[in-house]
Amino acid sequence: MSQELRAVEWTGTGLALIDQTALPHRTETVDVHDVDGLVDAIRRLVVRGAPAIGAAGAYGVAIALLQGEREGWTEAEVRAAVARIREARPTAVNLMVCVDRVMTRFGKGLDAVLEEAAAVQREDVEANRAMAAFGADWLLKRVGEDRPLRILTHCNTGALATAGWGTALGVVRELHARGRVEVVYADETRPLLQGSRLTAWELVQEGIPHYVQVDGAAAGTILRGQVDAAVVGADRIAANGDTANKVGTVGVALACADAGIPFLVAAPTTTVDLATPDGDAIHIELRGEDEVLEWAGVRTAPAASRGHNPAFDVTPGRLVTGLVTERGVLEVSAGELPGERLK
Amino acid sequence: MSQELRAVEWTGTGLALIDQTALPHRTETVDVHDVDGLVDAIRRLVVRGAPAIGAAGAYGVAIALLQGEREGWTEAEVRAAVARIREARPTAVNLMVCVDRVMTRFGKGLDAVLEEAAAVQREDVEANRAMAAFGADWLLKRVGEDRPLRILTHCNTGALATAGWGTALGVVRELHARGRVEVVYADETRPLLQGSRLTAWELVQEGIPHYVQVDGAAAGTILRGQVDAAVVGADRIAANGDTANKVGTVGVALACADAGIPFLVAAPTTTVDLATPDGDAIHIELRGEDEVLEWAGVRTAPAASRGHNPAFDVTPGRLVTGLVTERGVLEVSAGELPGERLK
Repeated sequence: MSQELRAVEWTGTGLALIDQTALPHRTETVDVHDVDGLVDAIRRLVVRGAPAIGAAGAYGVAIALLQGEREGWTEAEVRAAVARIREARPTAVNLMVCVDRVMTRFGKGLDAVLEEAAAVQREDVEANRAMAAFGADWLLKRVGEDRPLRILTHCNTGALATAGWGTALGVVRELHARGRVEVVYADETRPLLQGSRLTAWELVQEGIPHYVQVDGAAAGTILRGQVDAAVVGADRIAANGDTANKVGTVGVALACADAGIPFLVAAPTTTVDLATPDGDAIHIELRGEDEVLEWAGVRTAPAASRGHNPAFDVTPGRLVTGLVTERGVLEVSAGELPGERLK
Repeated sequence: MSQELRAVEWTGTGLALIDQTALPHRTETVDVHDVDGLVDAIRRLVVRGAPAIGAAGAYGVAIALLQGEREGWTEAEVRAAVARIREARPTAVNLMVCVDRVMTRFGKGLDAVLEEAAAVQREDVEANRAMAAFGADWLLKRVGEDRPLRILTHCNTGALATAGWGTALGVVRELHARGRVEVVYADETRPLLQGSRLTAWELVQEGIPHYVQVDGAAAGTILRGQVDAAVVGADRIAANGDTANKVGTVGVALACADAGIPFLVAAPTTTVDLATPDGDAIHIELRGEDEVLEWAGVRTAPAASRGHNPAFDVTPGRLVTGLVTERGVLEVSAGELPGERLK
């Protein structure tokens, strides 16, 4: 994959989003020119991954301004449209942070808004590059310098999930660039298979050896000694280090703790929400039952069955060996809490 | 569901197997009259669940004898055919135990073999009924008598997985009969969805309230306090209590230990293999990559990706709060080891 892959790209009049629901078999772009289209793209996961959603939301302010101009909205109507974008997915904090940041330029007009959105995107890539280096350094120091690493990851946290390069997968890419990846175990990440469809696709592009496995295999693979470290992303990190991420993450963390291997969370500081004291305060998005009960539109469960479909889970900070941001690594389980160190 | 549901039934000339690959949408029966057909049915999971495979293997001796008569096999050829059945799936011990038990009557002819196979099947149902009562008593005593329970289970361990009634799901059925089930969380159990397709189907038949969830949701559901106990089956239990069961089980056990709720394994003593000292000695069946990389014959992962597909994992005995057999409950994590108590 070239570094130029952009899941979110401003075209001058709207957003071009790589349609992540169509990968890995088709690489298609969805053009978004209005607020409804952007909210829909976020909800349907055409664009997903907390930092990528954040970048899309940042440009979303410009989309609302442009649509408001075209359709003669009042300022209040434009602000209401921005609020809808801001709330399109409730768990990830980046979306809200990025929208709020761009909204500080709202009064200065479209050019100022676009300039700020571009800064959001550029800084996310820079943050990813920085955290990749910090994370790789920390892992190699922690796990040992004598051989390439076997890394487990969950969901997709690569270039597709961010403004570019990737968070957790960015750490893996950095390790690979240093010749220090033996193999990646990519959890398929049900129900929407971001691991199987997106992470595997990125790993293929990068030429990184990998296995896709069912999510249920993660704990056993770790306990059998087949993994040196797990690296995952985050959608929201509380002040005490409790980390909301894709459903299935906390099971990986429990297995790492039991096996005594590092569990590394890679996320930009925009993902750290110091206003959230702990995981209990994080709202967990419950998505539609059909994502669990159906497969590609075909029902797999009995018609009378109900589905329970939390999109995220919360990993207690005590299980987070390392949290790498663009500022460095906090050893959360050893007491380096984001609320104290990232003020 | 009536108690008469039989996943494995002797027809007088062969086996009628409920085709568990077609459920929940079609209830079809596969008739097996030769050894190749039986081995194929076991490998393709037409019949699955350690005790059900054990019963099918027990009757498989009769199938080999009958085919040998028809086709003029030598005794050595019949024995070789039986050995193929015995090895059709390497992790479950019941298959081997049941085949070996029936083979003690091999020299006495077909009627004696059939009588022993019928005894295997009958005794499995009796064992299931006994362990259901022991398990329900133990759970209610342990979790509290004041309210119905919220139970999480993984894979399918009901009537379909056994000669009848069920092991872990048998405990749930017993609790339900006592009016003590609030809800069951059924992990979908990738890659083959035994939870979504089979457990949910049985729960619908029984009228037991339930949610299907992705396997990755199990740990979060447990850690958020939504589950009172987990109950699972087993394919092989070592002398020290290490338990091989469907991939994904050990993640459930880790979450239960972290949350401080009981993790109960329900299995007949035929599943306990005292010749296996611990989990390291259990051979874990690796199944085909396509089960992970495809869905209903359609590739979901990139063409260049590899799959890692262990069918089972091993839960250390230290995480097994209770092991219920037809003889009662062993509190394994508290030191009651099968190798000492089930000799």
